[in-house]
Amino acid sequence: MATAGKVIKCKGVFAAAVAWEAGKPLSIEEVEVAPPQAMEVRVKILYTALCHTDVYFWEAKGQTPVFPRILGHEAGGIVESVGEGVTELAPGDHVLPVFTGECKECDHCKSEESNMCDLLRINVDRGVMIGDGKSRFTIKGKPIFHFVGTSTFSEYTVIHVGCLAKINPEAPLDKVCILSCGFSTGFGATVNVAKPKKGQTVAIFGLGAVGLAAMEGARLSGASRIIGVDLNPAKFEQAKKFGCTDFVNPKDHSKPVHEVLIEMTNGGLDRAVECTGNINAMISCFECVHDGWGVAVLVGVPTKDDVFKTHPMNFLNEKTLKGTFFGNYKPRTDLPNVVELYMKKELELEKFITHTVPFSEINTAFDLMLKGESLRCVMRMDE
Amino acid sequence: MATAGKVIKCKGVFAAAVAWEAGKPLSIEEVEVAPPQAMEVRVKILYTALCHTDVYFWEAKGQTPVFPRILGHEAGGIVESVGEGVTELAPGDHVLPVFTGECKECDHCKSEESNMCDLLRINVDRGVMIGDGKSRFTIKGKPIFHFVGTSTFSEYTVIHVGCLAKINPEAPLDKVCILSCGFSTGFGATVNVAKPKKGQTVAIFGLGAVGLAAMEGARLSGASRIIGVDLNPAKFEQAKKFGCTDFVNPKDHSKPVHEVLIEMTNGGLDRAVECTGNINAMISCFECVHDGWGVAVLVGVPTKDDVFKTHPMNFLNEKTLKGTFFGNYKPRTDLPNVVELYMKKELELEKFITHTVPFSEINTAFDLMLKGESLRCVMRMDE
Repeated sequence: MATAGKVIKCKGVFAAAVAWEAGKPLSIEEVEVAPPQAMEVRVKILYTALCHTDVYFWEAKGQTPVFPRILGHEAGGIVESVGEGVTELAPGDHVLPVFTGECKECDHCKSEESNMCDLLRINVDRGVMIGDGKSRFTIKGKPIFHFVGTSTFSEYTVIHVGCLAKINPEAPLDKVCILSCGFSTGFGATVNVAKPKKGQTVAIFGLGAVGLAAMEGARLSGASRIIGVDLNPAKFEQAKKFGCTDFVNPKDHSKPVHEVLIEMTNGGLDRAVECTGNINAMISCFECVHDGWGVAVLVGVPTKDDVFKTHPMNFLNEKTLKGTFFGNYKPRTDLPNVVELYMKKELELEKFITHTVPFSEINTAFDLMLKGESLRCVMRMDE
Repeated sequence: MATAGKVIKCKGVFAAAVAWEAGKPLSIEEVEVAPPQAMEVRVKILYTALCHTDVYFWEAKGQTPVFPRILGHEAGGIVESVGEGVTELAPGDHVLPVFTGECKECDHCKSEESNMCDLLRINVDRGVMIGDGKSRFTIKGKPIFHFVGTSTFSEYTVIHVGCLAKINPEAPLDKVCILSCGFSTGFGATVNVAKPKKGQTVAIFGLGAVGLAAMEGARLSGASRIIGVDLNPAKFEQAKKFGCTDFVNPKDHSKPVHEVLIEMTNGGLDRAVECTGNINAMISCFECVHDGWGVAVLVGVPTKDDVFKTHPMNFLNEKTLKGTFFGNYKPRTDLPNVVELYMKKELELEKFITHTVPFSEINTAFDLMLKGESLRCVMRMDE
């Protein structure tokens, strides 16, 4: 492309949304995006969605603040140019950026079981590229920090090749963009880790986008009964579209919710997936599974000081406790196959996209999520 | 047989060893053994070994004492007669009694994953048969309690058909008798639950008979490195025969043992199996496994008040925590196949049998175990 090797200036209402400080509305700014260096790719973003994690690092409560920063990590785009050493991608390829990577050379990438790449594993504190420790974004010469290696709230962004999944160019990017984080995290937790068998019972703790994606995994696995657990009773109506057969609100019961669930299921759930990050929900998620074969999977991110506690006899009674990171998907190897599931009409991604706005209205997307009104709000960069 | 349907009186020095009260030497007594009732089998025991669990319930510290009682649960014998409804076994069949059963009809027995039979799951407090709530043992008319449905410290005993594995009659009962508890518990924990792949690293916590059986499983799985962890340094020499390549004594280090293990293995073990029942060892067993793919398996029985604690991030980093009961073996379905492994010379059971004594010297077997001098002491009933 004519822009290859040159700095690109993102202009106008679809330029870049910069978070100048914690909790303050983002502002659309003209940003200069440097060319990709070795093993890097410059991507033109077409659609980007908002995920809770963006909001979490924008609020920056109890974290080291990294500002000014360009957030955003759930997106779909097209390769504009590639840096030295990049052979797997070429200009024009359709890609999903991912907040964690796959170098294909470390022990984790070589393991069949892990997706926790030593080189490109998520790093929320780093605001620069790993190659040279510098940012590719500047405003009037002043560097703006990156976010989890993706920074998709920009018309153009620079990403390590290991954090880009090359996907079917026929796939509609306005839909499959949501596969690059939340959906895959929840869906993979069920289908790759909990692995319910046809006819089994599954409980899902937390009915946000990740929990509903976990539920979609249970529905596609043929679960006979899917029990949603959430503190907000309004979530049940929406969850029914995702296969939820029963709803339990812990607030409606005086006994611990796992005791309620065990009674409802004659001894416990076959599988349970925790998508809230609340330590009590994590403990109930494990306690509620059936002895002999129950599997509990933790997905929600705990706080630094949380302690998971249980009586060890639960393990000797043959309950299994696992957790997962990005649904155990290897970004480059596995994500293209998840896109194909959508192309085969097995995944119903449309149910997750409750809102669509132009990118210039990104602060509306933040408001919708803060009010709990959206599952996913997709932002268009091109109109 | 001529004895079928009649009370059998066990006489002489190989009659039955009765525990009259907690911690007092057993005494050999003449015992009357009633005929088997519905779904029961009367078995002539030829060899019985002593397991820690016998000693534990003989000491009866902190438990409801059940005396007088005939202990014993690791044994091999021959069917003398069968009760009404028993079709799978006939007089003359060679059997291994098992402390937990398999009814083949409950949800657990029908599950491919569980061996925790609803009907015949181990019950350490019950001293009678489940059919009629009575004992089959009497001394001068006074009932003597059973132990975990097996009571193999007797020339004849009565056992529910669901707690008997019918095995190859060619198998030497003086060797395969140890498969009926400790060996299978440890070996199965590794091969059925931890499932190390060829070339992986495995840590075993606790180098008693169960731990060494877990180690035998690691050796047969082709583990590249097997690290034994024990507070007694004398255990290393013996463990070498079972494939132990490295030994770590937690007492030799000021930092927690899992940190030592993580440093030794460049990030953690691929698999770890805990066979002590000590809560700190359980926690270290989990902490020491590698993120991304590590699997920890708990085998040792904790005390009532133990609490397993860890940071939940360990699960999100894709470590798995499991536990097992009787090595996940279904007694009737799977144990005959473990016997066949021995017949094919894959298992080296002889290494475990450190002592052999006549049954009349059963108190010597207790002494050897209490002093930590024996792995397994097999007692002969017939000479």
